[in-house]
Amino acid sequence: MSAVDHKDAEGIYSLLQRTFGERVMPNPRGPGALFSLDYNERLFRQNYRHPVLVSAAAGVSARLKAAAIVGRYDTVGVDLVAACVNDVLAQGAEPLFLLDYLAADGLRPEALRQVVAGIADGCRQAGCSLLGGKTVEAPGDCGLAGFAVGIVERARLVDGAKVEPGDLLIGLPSGGLHSAGHALAQRLFFEEARMRPGDPLERFGIGRTLAEELLAPARIYVRPVRAALYHYRVKMVVTGIAHVADGGLAGSIPRALPEGCSAELEEASWRRPAVFDALRQIGGLPAEEMYRTFNMGVGMVLIVSPYYAASIMRTLRREGEEPAAIGRVVEGPRQVTIQ
Amino acid sequence: MSAVDHKDAEGIYSLLQRTFGERVMPNPRGPGALFSLDYNERLFRQNYRHPVLVSAAAGVSARLKAAAIVGRYDTVGVDLVAACVNDVLAQGAEPLFLLDYLAADGLRPEALRQVVAGIADGCRQAGCSLLGGKTVEAPGDCGLAGFAVGIVERARLVDGAKVEPGDLLIGLPSGGLHSAGHALAQRLFFEEARMRPGDPLERFGIGRTLAEELLAPARIYVRPVRAALYHYRVKMVVTGIAHVADGGLAGSIPRALPEGCSAELEEASWRRPAVFDALRQIGGLPAEEMYRTFNMGVGMVLIVSPYYAASIMRTLRREGEEPAAIGRVVEGPRQVTIQ
Repeated sequence: MSAVDHKDAEGIYSLLQRTFGERVMPNPRGPGALFSLDYNERLFRQNYRHPVLVSAAAGVSARLKAAAIVGRYDTVGVDLVAACVNDVLAQGAEPLFLLDYLAADGLRPEALRQVVAGIADGCRQAGCSLLGGKTVEAPGDCGLAGFAVGIVERARLVDGAKVEPGDLLIGLPSGGLHSAGHALAQRLFFEEARMRPGDPLERFGIGRTLAEELLAPARIYVRPVRAALYHYRVKMVVTGIAHVADGGLAGSIPRALPEGCSAELEEASWRRPAVFDALRQIGGLPAEEMYRTFNMGVGMVLIVSPYYAASIMRTLRREGEEPAAIGRVVEGPRQVTIQ
Repeated sequence: MSAVDHKDAEGIYSLLQRTFGERVMPNPRGPGALFSLDYNERLFRQNYRHPVLVSAAAGVSARLKAAAIVGRYDTVGVDLVAACVNDVLAQGAEPLFLLDYLAADGLRPEALRQVVAGIADGCRQAGCSLLGGKTVEAPGDCGLAGFAVGIVERARLVDGAKVEPGDLLIGLPSGGLHSAGHALAQRLFFEEARMRPGDPLERFGIGRTLAEELLAPARIYVRPVRAALYHYRVKMVVTGIAHVADGGLAGSIPRALPEGCSAELEEASWRRPAVFDALRQIGGLPAEEMYRTFNMGVGMVLIVSPYYAASIMRTLRREGEEPAAIGRVVEGPRQVTIQ
């Protein structure tokens, strides 16, 4: 049960190296992962007068379990990166690097390679470096945790404090289930509906198998959201950002709302993937519980000043996003209502 | 199986707050943990012209399992902090903050509180802030992972590159088993020797119970080692630092040695706690395997220029340490030999 550093695992460290930006200081033997802040470099100095490090820890235990059931480990790493860096991004920060920690039971070397390759893929999507990580043998395929560090200029920190009634909510589509409610989804499909991973989901109007649906990688929103923030770096018209994670869409939005503000969503305003209707049908869950468990098709929410909403949506579309105006901020006790 | 943020767990966030230094920016609702680098502050600017972030991930799954067997969770958090920050320290860095991620099976709220209180204790010992963390329900008490971030001036990074034959090794005593080889130790005591947690260890010359021995907290070396590094911050006579972790004493020292250098240890030069002799007696392990599995009584090794060794040892003693000159660097293929 002793841990193996990614540096010492056959064929693993080269996966990390491919993600290294120029601020990574290679340290193939030492115990710590090194990242230079380039304090004296002119470029960095221009960008950051008062830098704040933003860090987030997250895990994807349920997704890892699904990967073990299906026997395919190539997307769980992307999910891990999404869970970590979307949290960092939700404070307006630029992700710098990520480390992972994997506790698994007799994971074959090829499965480990798939997990780490997925993490490296996710890091490249997020423009951050996979600095290091460790694997340990543990009973049950029970844990994949990650930890991301980003940086933001203090004055440009997004914390929801300036959100006010009248602001609009722009939703960015999720790639499927993501992490929120994944354990419940597995229970509903495998136990309630007694389905197997290879079963098609045609009867729910879904053109892929259950395994494909469960393992669809989570989306990483760093590039489009950073583009929108950068475009408005002076006016700062993005007042709040909610990463839709634990608590589902309705539980996540309040984390970006100040006291005295609620959000009203218009259900018809965005496309809800069929998997959520399938889950509702199988589990017979009330709509409210669905919204407090799953992302319902929205992975990230930007709260923006209404005067700039159309322009921000154009910026997001230029980055390949399909944003939707999904609701608005109203006075209220930090709740989400669905219409 | 959805994760609970420490911020949202009853009675947990106040444990974190007690560790917050003045650079922590409280962020009780947002998804990220915020740490100000004080770029424009005069004090910070003096210390760091070219700061390098040093990060490390570690886990203490075996220690968590022992805690679950004994039913006492108050020391495993200290072990986690030790595993993370001693790695950061081994690069010469000052630990800034730590996040944790706990995957456990039906952990009672009081046990969770003990785990997090232990992490907070460890962070106070290390002079760093417990910025955040999450708990998730998972089958088996299977994982406690931590991530620490520290900072070091690039010119003062300790990476072993300047270690040379003739340098001396100064060992700092461990507090017992620490993490290295803990799973094997449990197997030997519980399965080979068929002992129970409450059994006394008198027959091995140890005045505590097996449970007390297995749960003895790992030592955190931040204060004494930082004092020694600070004292010699100009001359930089500490050429290498090895945190004794996975691989035991013999496996850890080479991580601080450059090509062409080996280490010779004199076994009689430091006090070896009786628990290692007990394990050797139960398991019948050859000495070489003992040294490649356990710390053998040494938790941290400083490699120093011989002309300053006596003075460094005085500095360490002033900090309450009991350093021992345990060996020296010789020419060789990055190996450790024991005499």
